[in-house]
Amino acid sequence: MTVRAAVAGASGYAGGELLRLLLAHPDVEIGALTAGSNAGSSLGEHHPNLVPLADRMLVDTAATELAGHDVVFLALPHGHSAALAAELGDDVVVVDCGADHRLNDPTAWERWYGGEHPGTWPYGIPELPGGRDGLRGANRIAVPGCFPTVSSLALAPAVAAGIVEPEAVVVAVTGSSGAGRALKPHLLSAEVMGSASVYGVGGAHRHTPELIQNLSAAAGGDVAVSFTPVLAPMARGILATCSAPVRDGVDAEAARKVYDQAYGDEPFVHVLPEGSWPQTSATVGANTVHLQLTIDWDAGRLVVVGAEDNLTKGTAGGAVQCMNLALGLDETAGLPVAGLAP
Amino acid sequence: MTVRAAVAGASGYAGGELLRLLLAHPDVEIGALTAGSNAGSSLGEHHPNLVPLADRMLVDTAATELAGHDVVFLALPHGHSAALAAELGDDVVVVDCGADHRLNDPTAWERWYGGEHPGTWPYGIPELPGGRDGLRGANRIAVPGCFPTVSSLALAPAVAAGIVEPEAVVVAVTGSSGAGRALKPHLLSAEVMGSASVYGVGGAHRHTPELIQNLSAAAGGDVAVSFTPVLAPMARGILATCSAPVRDGVDAEAARKVYDQAYGDEPFVHVLPEGSWPQTSATVGANTVHLQLTIDWDAGRLVVVGAEDNLTKGTAGGAVQCMNLALGLDETAGLPVAGLAP
Amino acid sequence: MTVRAAVAGASGYAGGELLRLLLAHPDVEIGALTAGSNAGSSLGEHHPNLVPLADRMLVDTAATELAGHDVVFLALPHGHSAALAAELGDDVVVVDCGADHRLNDPTAWERWYGGEHPGTWPYGIPELPGGRDGLRGANRIAVPGCFPTVSSLALAPAVAAGIVEPEAVVVAVTGSSGAGRALKPHLLSAEVMGSASVYGVGGAHRHTPELIQNLSAAAGGDVAVSFTPVLAPMARGILATCSAPVRDGVDAEAARKVYDQAYGDEPFVHVLPEGSWPQTSATVGANTVHLQLTIDWDAGRLVVVGAEDNLTKGTAGGAVQCMNLALGLDETAGLPVAGLAP
Amino acid sequence: MTVRAAVAGASGYAGGELLRLLLAHPDVEIGALTAGSNAGSSLGEHHPNLVPLADRMLVDTAATELAGHDVVFLALPHGHSAALAAELGDDVVVVDCGADHRLNDPTAWERWYGGEHPGTWPYGIPELPGGRDGLRGANRIAVPGCFPTVSSLALAPAVAAGIVEPEAVVVAVTGSSGAGRALKPHLLSAEVMGSASVYGVGGAHRHTPELIQNLSAAAGGDVAVSFTPVLAPMARGILATCSAPVRDGVDAEAARKVYDQAYGDEPFVHVLPEGSWPQTSATVGANTVHLQLTIDWDAGRLVVVGAEDNLTKGTAGGAVQCMNLALGLDETAGLPVAGLAP
Repeated sequence: MTVRAAVAGASGYAGGELLRLLLAHPDVEIGALTAGSNAGSSLGEHHPNLVPLADRMLVDTAATELAGHDVVFLALPHGHSAALAAELGDDVVVVDCGADHRLNDPTAWERWYGGEHPGTWPYGIPELPGGRDGLRGANRIAVPGCFPTVSSLALAPAVAAGIVEPEAVVVAVTGSSGAGRALKPHLLSAEVMGSASVYGVGGAHRHTPELIQNLSAAAGGDVAVSFTPVLAPMARGILATCSAPVRDGVDAEAARKVYDQAYGDEPFVHVLPEGSWPQTSATVGANTVHLQLTIDWDAGRLVVVGAEDNLTKGTAGGAVQCMNLALGLDETAGLPVAGLAP
Repeated sequence: MTVRAAVAGASGYAGGELLRLLLAHPDVEIGALTAGSNAGSSLGEHHPNLVPLADRMLVDTAATELAGHDVVFLALPHGHSAALAAELGDDVVVVDCGADHRLNDPTAWERWYGGEHPGTWPYGIPELPGGRDGLRGANRIAVPGCFPTVSSLALAPAVAAGIVEPEAVVVAVTGSSGAGRALKPHLLSAEVMGSASVYGVGGAHRHTPELIQNLSAAAGGDVAVSFTPVLAPMARGILATCSAPVRDGVDAEAARKVYDQAYGDEPFVHVLPEGSWPQTSATVGANTVHLQLTIDWDAGRLVVVGAEDNLTKGTAGGAVQCMNLALGLDETAGLPVAGLAP
Repeated sequence: MTVRAAVAGASGYAGGELLRLLLAHPDVEIGALTAGSNAGSSLGEHHPNLVPLADRMLVDTAATELAGHDVVFLALPHGHSAALAAELGDDVVVVDCGADHRLNDPTAWERWYGGEHPGTWPYGIPELPGGRDGLRGANRIAVPGCFPTVSSLALAPAVAAGIVEPEAVVVAVTGSSGAGRALKPHLLSAEVMGSASVYGVGGAHRHTPELIQNLSAAAGGDVAVSFTPVLAPMARGILATCSAPVRDGVDAEAARKVYDQAYGDEPFVHVLPEGSWPQTSATVGANTVHLQLTIDWDAGRLVVVGAEDNLTKGTAGGAVQCMNLALGLDETAGLPVAGLAP
Repeated sequence: MTVRAAVAGASGYAGGELLRLLLAHPDVEIGALTAGSNAGSSLGEHHPNLVPLADRMLVDTAATELAGHDVVFLALPHGHSAALAAELGDDVVVVDCGADHRLNDPTAWERWYGGEHPGTWPYGIPELPGGRDGLRGANRIAVPGCFPTVSSLALAPAVAAGIVEPEAVVVAVTGSSGAGRALKPHLLSAEVMGSASVYGVGGAHRHTPELIQNLSAAAGGDVAVSFTPVLAPMARGILATCSAPVRDGVDAEAARKVYDQAYGDEPFVHVLPEGSWPQTSATVGANTVHLQLTIDWDAGRLVVVGAEDNLTKGTAGGAVQCMNLALGLDETAGLPVAGLAP
């Protein structure tokens, strides 16, 4: 079976990473590549790394160009996917890397993004409890945000098992590709290199409600989350330091067991050997999340640290994994487990 | 008045930064420069940036070499300062950048460093409540650790004012110069560049008890702290994201007022204008801490973010500031406020 | 004597570096700060490192704002300085960090910049042969480009002494602040970090004719130069690798003597001890050029490597040095010799 | 056909990259992994990115461990391969990533490495003129150095076609992984980040004679080469700026034709579209070399710029490509063409 896939928003970072992965996918043939203002240029101008596709022309992001594919990946700013998906029809699998269909709660949508809720699609973190149920055979998929992917995987087992209080603190260091290719002064290289900075502090980042939604679902009740993203001078990678008050009677062995049980059979989520702590370089270009945990007895908190590549497992790799599930392919097809380091 | 200053451990990063600052200090003349295994080589081999001192020879770190100076800065591994100081006598001001004399509690010392407690010296964060009292005229000073400097300044006003519960979470991103010039595999450039990683997780970092000591003193009671350091690909800088549960009845204005009152007259601690958040590049090479705060009402936490240069305000600049206080010089003499950016 | 200085183009990188240096200059008081589209905002929004000037408002770049100062620094795109200078009158010292008045040859100007030649001003590399003559007492100064500064200083002694053939190859690695604060896709941090790239290859960079002009003047005849700039993932610094065929009969000792004689008395140009090679970090924030040379006998070429901080000696520091000369101040006033490293 | 491959020196960077590629090779099964002082530890301790091999134990680098494999990759310091290969016998394909068997000339060997010449093996740049001849069916292969790979490919067509004089200047910017995992002070992250530096200036780098050998072979006569390596703050990548005096009568079109003819059919060497210039990020993790050229008419030089990943095409990818040729596999098997960017 060969799946014909289109990528909308191919000139951005998420689009480029999708294409890098799809080029190596044994079951995929790459079809239309679309863009907004970059339509009319060649892909090579935007992604000189994607040599085999260098001469491909970018066409307008329009349903007419995207129709006729088995799968359409949307790597667009939020607000575009609902209308496009409606035009594409139900026999096309639409995998949305944007935010439109991640939040269940229309009120949350209105607060964080504004306007009418575009509806909820099956949510793309297969490794969360019951995560694969909605994805197998789905024709609409909401790929999670890069921060919620690693942070949810880091904390969900603990809140689900009730070994921590439902109030978490997450500080996640990210590389700058997470901000996309937008021309903003604070993303200029001379600003970012040699500096660490924060943004979206105080729960102001739009990935906060998504993380709360995931953890509350895992806990079966409300979980409060204080989330702070930190920009570090690197292109790729997220390192999330997550903690929550540990409940009485929990010990290190029990905590570890919770994580081993949650992820022992997962191909992409690795609880590292004791004594090893995650580093983002080990996940670069791979569809993996690396986790480690400990209990800080003085502070009374479980600390879980997770690493991922924001563009791979955090966006494009997660999207391809979901596509594999949706189409009944091998879930791991085309997805690297070995990262590129150093 | 010209102060004659010696630097022990001049070939390391802290020693180099001390010399960079002392070269520009209007009241200081640089005397003996000592080293361990690097004794016998010129300073220029280790610090090619310090052109005016390039031909100075490093001599052995010994009291005989350090005697006869008004001030001796110790930038040595812990365990060396007590004996050296005893040999130097009381009329020499000894400013120790190492850990030996920071902790008040012998039990804490034994747990974190092992062996007998070397005794406590006046602690060098002038901007903490009452911080200048012990420093003015002191002949022994314990320069704080780089993480405790910025983290204590970020949280002390809140715990002192009682606007938060006494349980804080601190995740601090640091550049790699904080680890010194030791030849360790994980500090190799190919490992660090392009990667974020954690270490000392779960309260295992030796700066944890120092931070707890500072915050507990400010609070007048025990404060629990979960502290996690994150290594980011930059040479200098610490960005500390600090939070604690906000107490009922506190609002944003009240919180801000607490910080404005604490630091409004401080020459080196700056609460940024509302809407601006700290970035480490703004503090590079300067003796400053930049702070900003907000309340995350959903999570119920006060979030305070602080930035500093770990080598300047976090070590050598703080040391010079303390020397100024000890000797009755202008506290700000020789200390830059403008950082080097980009 | 206190000099009142204005900076036009204060929100860019060159403007920021000028202000960082002027803040520490013993004889300067900072006056008007102007900007183009950033007029109306505070300086702190653009340079959070410049704490003492954070609240200063940027006004329009106009002669009315710049008048009434002793010195006006122009850090503007090329094409603006001639008209502004004319309005300011002859009793104001105008130091232009832009390209307008660097080239002597109207034909070269037209080829490289287009339009009518704005005229030539005294050229601001004091350390070139006869370089100080035109600068002392000048009221108009053309600050050199960042690449020509270090490359000219690296090669001028050799071509002046005739120890090499007049055909040089220069490959200069630069940090990205040299490109200014322009919002261009290839300057985004995710593009620059982890990558080296070239631009302006084949003699297409506008600094090429300026370098040729300097070397030809030093040689007293035409010098051909192949110049290639390379963008490396760092914020500051230029490392120029320069070479030319060595003439018969020249030996290493003679070559070294040429450089020692040229720069032995210079406060800012340092020929490193034999065996030491320049690194840009040793010059960060300092007004220095570090040089080293050797002869490659197999290839028959003299190789000279130079390092500088493109924003300091390469732009703003060079500008302040020229101002000092123009006003009869100590040439080294306000200019750091010790770099900030690591 | 499944090839069983061993890697000697598996804990270093070259060994890790070999394993990353071999894991994805359709025809290879990974056998013994050996190390020197790291023998007895697990691979995961040294390469946490290689999750599928994390539990593999490193054994001693000894012929007894390496015997019984179809292919043995040697990623060892120079001086070890001849004896090991002799013990392994002729039916094992030995691919040496070290320097031992690259140089043809015993005198050159003695000058650059010292001691007796270990003999010459078929040299592993298939894309050089006649480069595949000695590699097909070979049982001993000398993988080239990382600098000579890209620099030879950049200049060989020009010297072979006689469009330039046989005297080249090469300045090559490299990431720090090229220096391996050795614990040397100048490779510490705080030294490398934010700095560019040179080493091996004046023809002192050991890759110089190899590059001269390659270009002289292509030219059919002596080629002089001035080679300077520059260390830049990135983990991977080489960008080589190469130039030579262009001969009379050559024009841009003719020069371009020479390169198109040389590499038009090559799967891994790409002459970029006119106007595009190489950047190392486009080759990260890929077995590719990207080239672009122009003529600088003022300087009278052909300028060719090449980019590669020093660990992939520059070492491990080149080694796998040679193995493919030696064993009669598809030359491109297991070798990525799409780089990982940003």
